[in-house]
Order: sequence, then C-alpha cells, then structure tokens
Amino acid sequence: MNLSDIKALDHIDPLRRCRDKFQLPKGTIYLDGNSLGALPKTVISRVNDVVELQWGQSLISSWNTHDWISLPSRVGTKIGRLIGAQDNTVICADSTSVNIFKLLSAAVRLAPNRRIILSDTGNFPNDLYIIQGVINFLDDKYELKLVAPEEIENSLTEDVAVAVLTEVDYRTGRRHNMAGLTSKAKSSDIKIIWDLCHSAGAFPVDLAECGVEFAVGCCYKYLNGGPGAPAFLYVTSELQDLIQPPLSGWMGHRAPFGFDLDYSPATGILRNLCGTPGVIAMSSLDAALDIWDDIDLQDVREKSQLMINLFAQLVAELCPNMGLSQITSFPEEQRGSQISFSHTHGYAIIQALIDRGVVGDFRDPDILRFGMTPLYISFDEVRQAVEIFADVLNKQIWDQPKFHRREAVT
Amino acid sequence: MNLSDIKALDHIDPLRRCRDKFQLPKGTIYLDGNSLGALPKTVISRVNDVVELQWGQSLISSWNTHDWISLPSRVGTKIGRLIGAQDNTVICADSTSVNIFKLLSAAVRLAPNRRIILSDTGNFPNDLYIIQGVINFLDDKYELKLVAPEEIENSLTEDVAVAVLTEVDYRTGRRHNMAGLTSKAKSSDIKIIWDLCHSAGAFPVDLAECGVEFAVGCCYKYLNGGPGAPAFLYVTSELQDLIQPPLSGWMGHRAPFGFDLDYSPATGILRNLCGTPGVIAMSSLDAALDIWDDIDLQDVREKSQLMINLFAQLVAELCPNMGLSQITSFPEEQRGSQISFSHTHGYAIIQALIDRGVVGDFRDPDILRFGMTPLYISFDEVRQAVEIFADVLNKQIWDQPKFHRREAVT
Repeated sequence: MNLSDIKALDHIDPLRRCRDKFQLPKGTIYLDGNSLGALPKTVISRVNDVVELQWGQSLISSWNTHDWISLPSRVGTKIGRLIGAQDNTVICADSTSVNIFKLLSAAVRLAPNRRIILSDTGNFPNDLYIIQGVINFLDDKYELKLVAPEEIENSLTEDVAVAVLTEVDYRTGRRHNMAGLTSKAKSSDIKIIWDLCHSAGAFPVDLAECGVEFAVGCCYKYLNGGPGAPAFLYVTSELQDLIQPPLSGWMGHRAPFGFDLDYSPATGILRNLCGTPGVIAMSSLDAALDIWDDIDLQDVREKSQLMINLFAQLVAELCPNMGLSQITSFPEEQRGSQISFSHTHGYAIIQALIDRGVVGDFRDPDILRFGMTPLYISFDEVRQAVEIFADVLNKQIWDQPKFHRREAVT
Repeated sequence: MNLSDIKALDHIDPLRRCRDKFQLPKGTIYLDGNSLGALPKTVISRVNDVVELQWGQSLISSWNTHDWISLPSRVGTKIGRLIGAQDNTVICADSTSVNIFKLLSAAVRLAPNRRIILSDTGNFPNDLYIIQGVINFLDDKYELKLVAPEEIENSLTEDVAVAVLTEVDYRTGRRHNMAGLTSKAKSSDIKIIWDLCHSAGAFPVDLAECGVEFAVGCCYKYLNGGPGAPAFLYVTSELQDLIQPPLSGWMGHRAPFGFDLDYSPATGILRNLCGTPGVIAMSSLDAALDIWDDIDLQDVREKSQLMINLFAQLVAELCPNMGLSQITSFPEEQRGSQISFSHTHGYAIIQALIDRGVVGDFRDPDILRFGMTPLYISFDEVRQAVEIFADVLNKQIWDQPKFHRREAVT
C-alpha cells in the first residue's frame, strides 16, 4: 500500500470526524489507547461542572437533584449498549478486580459439587490473582486449572465450576471465540465470567446473542473513561436473583436508606453494588460514553483490522531481518484491536519510540504492543509510526544507555 | 450566650481563616458536612490539571511522570497523619465497604478457633451488611453478635474473634471509648476493626497511641475529598505481613508489572491494594488533604464541642415544648462532631429547614442530624440555623404538603 492509498483510506474513513472529539497532545502518535484511552473533550466541562456546581454548590442535595444515586445504573446502561447487553443487566462499580471477585465468589455457589476454576495462561495475571484469592479465602475447596489459551475449549469438562476468561489476550492480541466457548460451557453447565477489558469499545460485543451469563470489564481503555475509571459488571437477567455477591454493601441493599440492621439484597443487577459510588470518576466516564452515540462499532472493528494489517505490512516491508517476530498473526476473527511483536531488546525499543513520539508499550519479557483506537488514530499515523519504528531499528537508536532498563523488576 | 458573645467566639476562632479555602454556596448554612464535606477551592484546579494535562497531554506516561502509581500510599500517608498512624500503615483505596470486607476476611483468620464477630446496633448498617456478607460467604462458620453500644465493653469475651465498631454513631453522635475498648480487646486477643467514617478530620484520633490494629474510614465527610471519594485502610505494622486480604489484585502484588502468573503479596500495607487506583478521584482527595497542613485538630475538636453546646443551648431557649428530644446528650468525651434530635415530624422539619437554607439531614425513623464542621462553619451560622429551626417549629412551617414524604421507603 502506497502513500496515496493510505491517504485515501483516511479520506473515506467514516470515523475521521471523531478525532475532533478528543484532546490529544501534539507531536505524539498514541498507540497505547489499550492501556489508557485518550481524553474526550466533553469530559473536561463535565468534570468541572460536577466539581464546581454539583458538589460545590448543590452539595449533598445532588444525590437527588443531579441523580448521583442512579449513576451506577445509568452508566451501566450506556456501557451495556456497547456490549450487546439488555437494559438492567450492567452496572458501573468498583474496579475490574473487585468485580471479578464478586462474580466468581457468587458463581462458584451455583455448582456446589464442582471444584475446578478454569483459566488460561494468556489471561491477564490480575484475573488469576483474584481467582487465587477466592480459592485461598474458601480454604482451598477449589482448584485453579490453568491451561494454554488454545486448550480452553477441550478443558470445558464437567468438573469445571467456573471459567474466568479474558476475551482478548493482553500480550498477543489473540481473541477467544466467545460465542463458541459460551455455548460449549453451557452444554456442560459451566459458568464463564468473561473479562472484556480489551473488548468493550474495541469492537462489537454481543453478550445477549452469545448467551453470556457473567462479564466484567474496565472503562479506562477503549471506553476512554479516565485513569482508573470505575469498571462494569454484567449478569444475565436469569441469574441475577440467584446469586449473592459476598460484598454485600448498602448500595446493593433493597432499601439503602431504610437503615435496617439486616442485609436484604436488591432484586436484579443492583445487588452487585457495594459502597458509595465515586461520583466524579463515574461522571467522567458518563461523559466519555456519549461519544458512542453516533458510532457504529462495526466501523470501529473494520478500521482497526485495516490498521493492524497496514501496520503488519509496513513492518514486513520496512523492518526485515531485525529480530522482530510478529506475535499477532492470527486470522482476523481471532484477534482484538492490537498488534504485538517480540524482540530481545523490546524494552529499549519502546523507550526509543516514545522518545520519538510514538507511544506503544512494553510487556515483560520481550513484547512490544501497539493498540489501535480507530476513534482518534488515522491510517497515516500508523504509517508514520512504522516509519519511525523502522528508523529506530535500522539505526539501532534503541541501543543508547538512556533507553535501557535501569533496574530489574523486583 | 448572647449575640455579642457569639460574635466574639467567631472573632477569636483560630480556624476562621479556613473558610476562605472552601467554595460554599451563598445563602446556605451547611450542617451536613458529616454526609458530604464541602469543596476545597484547591480541588478545582487540581482536578482540572489531572484531567487536562496529566491525562490529556501526558497520557499513559503519567503513571510515572506524575507518579499516579504511588497515589494510594502518598494519600494514605497524608490521612495517616490526621489519625495518629505511623508512616506506611495507611493506604487509600476502594470504598469503606470494600475495605471492611478486606480486613474482616483477613482478621478472622487470626483467631481460627473463635466464631463470634461482635458489633453493635448503633453501627452504620452498611458495616453490619458487610459482616453478614463475610459470614455468608464463609458458610456460616461465624456468627454475628449484635449488642447495644453500651454493652460492647462487657461483650468483649474470649469467644469473640473480631469486633467491628464505628467510633461515632451516625445517628446519635455517641462516641465509643477507642482507647479503653482497644486495650480491653487486646487483653483477650480480640481484633477490633475501627470504622473512622465520622472521626477522621472531625477530631484528633491517635491510632498508634490507642494501640489500634485495624481501621478503615471514608474521605468524603470531614476530609472533604469529594462525593464517593476513595476510602482508607489502616493496619498496624506488626500485623501487616500476617494477613492476606482475599481481594488479591495486582496492585497488591509484590511486582505488579512482573506479570507472574502466581500471586505473591507485597510486603507491608501495600498488599491491601487491589485494582487500578481511581486517579481523578484520588487526586481530588489528595488536594483536599492539603488543607490540614496548618490545622491543629485539637482546635477543630474544641470548636466543634463549643458549637454543639451552643446549638443545644439555643434549642433549649428557642424551641421549648415542641416535641423535640435531644439525642446527643452525652458528656463531651463521649460524643463526635454532630448533634441529633428526634421528632415525630423529623422528615418534614428537615425538608422545611433545607427550604430555608439550613441543610441538616434526616435519618429514619425520626432523627434530625446536624453536623459541625469547624473548618468552614461559624458560630454565628449555628445561631442563625437554630433561629430558623425555631421559626420552622414555632410556626409549624414544616406542616405543608410539599415538605411531607411522598412515599414510604420500600
């Protein structure tokens, strides 16, 4: 693909008007929106309004007058529309970690005679840590079975109580077959908790169509909610009243302001709330989600795959024989919205790229990761990024002491 | 006390300069800072900076360049100084509810042969709900013993594993004897988790001096961190490496970015972290805490008690025989920073007061609650508030349909 082809892609891109909705730094090509999404302009005024007017002027009355109290469900509903969830099946609350804990603790109760919690070695380690925490807390009544991502399908056997799977592998970009695995799991009465951290806002997800029962995800990557934005949690309607999350806080109570001494869970999805919602952060996310009102996620998906293909093609052309291995080389339907490579000097290369204004990220031990965020990145930026990448490799710019790791991760 | 005495109190008040640090609405006397603290002016610019510059311009690199990653411990250290905690014993994280869950789940492990979790009927119901959630999750291996607040001391018997106590009762303002109960509990090897929601920032707390082992608290009341601000969690140094919170997320891992598949807890207080910190909200709190740099909490305590006394005296003078009972009538050392009354028409009276610009709050079934926040409330405002209170009662202004409850709490 030549320069004029690339310019043409940008010209016909149905998403090109979206970039103006973001405030991006000049001189940076930001390929790390899969770590932290960029700032939607609308967030700036919204956060200011929440702080200065809602908090500062209306104070406590804002729980009613500005409807803070329903933020978790209002924001949840907006997220739900991006992941194919029905209304009243998604709430915004806590962190992804806490939400996995809630759902896993509740889900294991649904299969009292099974002892295996299944996951894969490509899962984000944090999810495995939470599984280990639940197992430890329950006196090792359960056992974590960890297999390679490709082995998940064959490991959905009838001794498995719950599987915790992240749809897109944070390192490789490999994407699980959510529909197929969910269907297979259901035929053996296995509950799957899907982690959508690298899915929500990256491509169309259809939880209802896939028959997904439990899901969680983060809102600071492709949903652009802000650093450490509150996360989301989904439970299909059929199971909502059958589970009891152990984090039984007052916001999940049937009558939070009735101040009964006994806990009595709300019906439906709301019982998965726990403490007081973080209003400022959740409002930032709420504003960020408005960006999606006139976006077709199918356009996002198509553009991200074109960007990955363009990146891969340009790397093949411009960076041959430089010790670079493309990790994300799966068929399109098996990949998310990133492209990853491995290289012995991955850490230093990423630092040199950042120094030149191309922001990707490094993941131990040797992975270079580039996220594609079609709302605010152009095809021509992909081209420029790879040209700089090639320059850094060709001239061994990375081989300067300032780009090397100063200390080992301890 | 006459008007000139009251003016004199304001004149000599060492805290009177603090009010300028807050942005308060005109025409409001805000006696609900024990629900949601007022907005410190410094928060406005800090939040704007975090959103527009740190997030918007520096993006992912802010985790290092703006040291987002250490916010939980930096903010924790600032809070620690207000509650008499040593450095490295407090972190800022999650909600109070989630933090109680973490500590209770960990603390019950320290007394494997005891089965009682003790609390009192004056505790904030949310804390009881969390206890019930932990008990339920652990298959009813434990039992909640609930006694009247006055009976806690005699209930610290050797069958108690853990007591969960809120220092100041949210309804009555009654304050537990933290030093005495902690000492008595220790002599029987009982762990107490102190909830400091109505203590931190309200008066001097000295966790180290009292020998407190576990504590949590919220930051959106007297600490003015913002609506739903992240909470704090304290563990004494001696116990930090002996507990393992079940919410074992990556931020509490020994090496969060090492991406080991196995969880290995950080040493010290950091293992109580779980998911990614909410940077915007925690930065708001961080800025709000700077207000305390030149404040003596003893001054805050003295002023709050004078305000409570003034409020009580004026009510006695101006509102006799109106069906009002003063609930907060404990000796000074046994009360927090609020004064509460009961009245059959409590709900309507509070609505009528709010309508007249005096913001207190109502708590079921019949409690009128007024919080004293010496940093931004003057003695003369207390006088004005009680005069309006008296007017509302004398003229039965509350007895208008618009002030009545439209529906029962369900």
